[in-house]
Amino acid sequence: MDHFFNVKTLDQVMRNLTDCSCMGTETVALTDAVSRILSEDITASLDIPGFRRATMDGYAVFSKSTFGATESNPSWLEIAGQVNMGEIPTFSLKPGFAADISTGGMLPQGADSVVMVEHTIAIDENSVEIYKSVAPLQNVIDSSEDFAKGEVVLQKGLKLRPPEIGLAAALGYSKIKVYKRPEVGIISTGDEIIDVAETPGPGRIRDINSYTLAGFIKEAGCIPHLYGIIKDDFNALLDICKKAFLETDMVLISGGSSVGARDFTIDVLNKIEKSEILAHGISISPGKPTIFAKSWDKLLWGLPGQVVSAMVVFKIVVLPFLNKLKGANNVFENKLMIPAKLSRNIASTQGRQDFVRIRLIKKDNELYAEPILGKSGLIKTMVQADGLLEIGENIEGMEKGSGVNIIPL
Amino acid sequence: MDHFFNVKTLDQVMRNLTDCSCMGTETVALTDAVSRILSEDITASLDIPGFRRATMDGYAVFSKSTFGATESNPSWLEIAGQVNMGEIPTFSLKPGFAADISTGGMLPQGADSVVMVEHTIAIDENSVEIYKSVAPLQNVIDSSEDFAKGEVVLQKGLKLRPPEIGLAAALGYSKIKVYKRPEVGIISTGDEIIDVAETPGPGRIRDINSYTLAGFIKEAGCIPHLYGIIKDDFNALLDICKKAFLETDMVLISGGSSVGARDFTIDVLNKIEKSEILAHGISISPGKPTIFAKSWDKLLWGLPGQVVSAMVVFKIVVLPFLNKLKGANNVFENKLMIPAKLSRNIASTQGRQDFVRIRLIKKDNELYAEPILGKSGLIKTMVQADGLLEIGENIEGMEKGSGVNIIPL
Repeated sequence: MDHFFNVKTLDQVMRNLTDCSCMGTETVALTDAVSRILSEDITASLDIPGFRRATMDGYAVFSKSTFGATESNPSWLEIAGQVNMGEIPTFSLKPGFAADISTGGMLPQGADSVVMVEHTIAIDENSVEIYKSVAPLQNVIDSSEDFAKGEVVLQKGLKLRPPEIGLAAALGYSKIKVYKRPEVGIISTGDEIIDVAETPGPGRIRDINSYTLAGFIKEAGCIPHLYGIIKDDFNALLDICKKAFLETDMVLISGGSSVGARDFTIDVLNKIEKSEILAHGISISPGKPTIFAKSWDKLLWGLPGQVVSAMVVFKIVVLPFLNKLKGANNVFENKLMIPAKLSRNIASTQGRQDFVRIRLIKKDNELYAEPILGKSGLIKTMVQADGLLEIGENIEGMEKGSGVNIIPL
Repeated sequence: MDHFFNVKTLDQVMRNLTDCSCMGTETVALTDAVSRILSEDITASLDIPGFRRATMDGYAVFSKSTFGATESNPSWLEIAGQVNMGEIPTFSLKPGFAADISTGGMLPQGADSVVMVEHTIAIDENSVEIYKSVAPLQNVIDSSEDFAKGEVVLQKGLKLRPPEIGLAAALGYSKIKVYKRPEVGIISTGDEIIDVAETPGPGRIRDINSYTLAGFIKEAGCIPHLYGIIKDDFNALLDICKKAFLETDMVLISGGSSVGARDFTIDVLNKIEKSEILAHGISISPGKPTIFAKSWDKLLWGLPGQVVSAMVVFKIVVLPFLNKLKGANNVFENKLMIPAKLSRNIASTQGRQDFVRIRLIKKDNELYAEPILGKSGLIKTMVQADGLLEIGENIEGMEKGSGVNIIPL
């Protein structure tokens, strides 16, 4: 058993991101693809919309035919026909002519713009007066204006939001190739920990970390597997850890990650075949007693037992690695920061990175970041928090009123 | 058929939120509850942690026994015993005594604090030297310090994030009561619209809105039902709309929502039993041709066919109503805004609320909001966007450098 930490900085740990592998791929229905990570570049196989298309109800025209038209001096145009939606117009348009068209309709050959119906008066079945001129391509989307055939429109590693899903639909992808969702094993350890369904006697406490970690894993679009609660027993912990290692893509053990007599996690991780301990201790607070290990291509984590520490370490340290495993280009997607003003002075210890729980408060149309004080064993400090504030290792403190960037929870 | 809009402001439409109903409730496993909306207040049925608990490995002591202890003048304490994890200590502690304890252990009666092991030296099996004094409750969480029995700890209508899930676990909720997930029917209409699996000929375009809307609905934790593409035909649209109305909790029809000859949505919604048209036209851009109708307690929406307009209207107008239906207290949860600086001047039309697509760019540690120009029929303008900027109806424009708040997409 190690009796001392082998502490790494957060930066040193994060450097391992570059040589982390990612999941295999699978094909899913487009309706199931939202929030998944695209596993291949998508190239436009056709122009979108693919034809010159009206964006207003009105009249398709050759724009020059309307130049100079005003309320007092309208242009008079002859009706060449009507465009049926979803069909190719059977006629083409000469200057001096107009065609009745609805939003989304295909402009007839010769037309380069659409006059909104509000700026026209139909004189009879054969003619219309135009009260406002239009420029070429006004109220029109041109054939390849949205996307041109051959263009790479969506890149491998992109998280598919609804607009990207819509674009894939436009290109005919009823199914789409994405990275598989990582499965993450969760083990809780500690003689004092009991199952959520049990009633704790004095000295015992229900398992919290399995549930908070599973929640974060689900939020990240991955699949949690709860391996239950293991007593502080080397062999029992090793057996379950081996099982989780074989069955899942990443393993989290919460509790027993420090250097005390009952902290078996480091010994267990050392015993996993071909394992390498990359860090025992990270210079962050909360969360110092964190173990980061690797076996073959799989990562194993020993997370602190303290409920807040476990959540902070997951969010700040584990999640970027999980995002890499998911295949995401942007592994720090959780770091879309919210700028705010610090509501009070805050002290910090040099030589470690602090992650302070923050409540966001709107006052006089300004957003303030209010530090939540309280021990890292108190779950209420996370329940009250909207985000985390990182204070760098060389900073002694921050002053009230300074601009800060909050990592949303 | 109405030939004119009956335009309402966004504010007028939003006033209907107050008398919107919400879903019934169901009980789900705690592991399935993340991101769901809690449907009842949760009261702490016990103190948490429920006993005086060590937050460090070390020695439980009566703090006064350590007062004045320094490296050069340590306190010498007698060992009263060892605390076994998860068990009630079988002894109590008198001043002058210490008990060996691990993180998470229960303090023996008489002890009020823990000295970190790093600040001690064990002399022999029966005594220890303390090199640093501790204050009462230092390195300890007191019995009801996290939550006290009887306290309302989670409120009805709250969205359950991982910390809340953890708290529910601590209180013994292996199952939890939440609001049911709304099911939302989606109908696309337009003679030019074809299924994603078909190849569009000239004048035709694949269905995009069904997929973008389904994506947003899934992101919101609700269940989309695609009713497919209906031609511009009153009876066909009425039949499918009635079916969707009976089978789902909210209905969205995209396309045919304007006032043209082919826009049947308003007539169809007028024909739904006991329906009331609350707005035909909302003074927002993009998205003016939006219909908002109600029948019994159910909402029906006619959304614009333009792909960007349909997404913006969903995000800005429909989503708060869907959140209300979901049972959420915070129906504007999508409005957690990101402050940024406008990268260029931007003009706006008075008398309507504009929603400008925005790309967020980090430069010199400042976040800039860059407006994305382009027609609202171009899906690429949404694919490039990170969020939306609202410009109020009485504002003519905004200047480069002004502080703005971006609604994330």
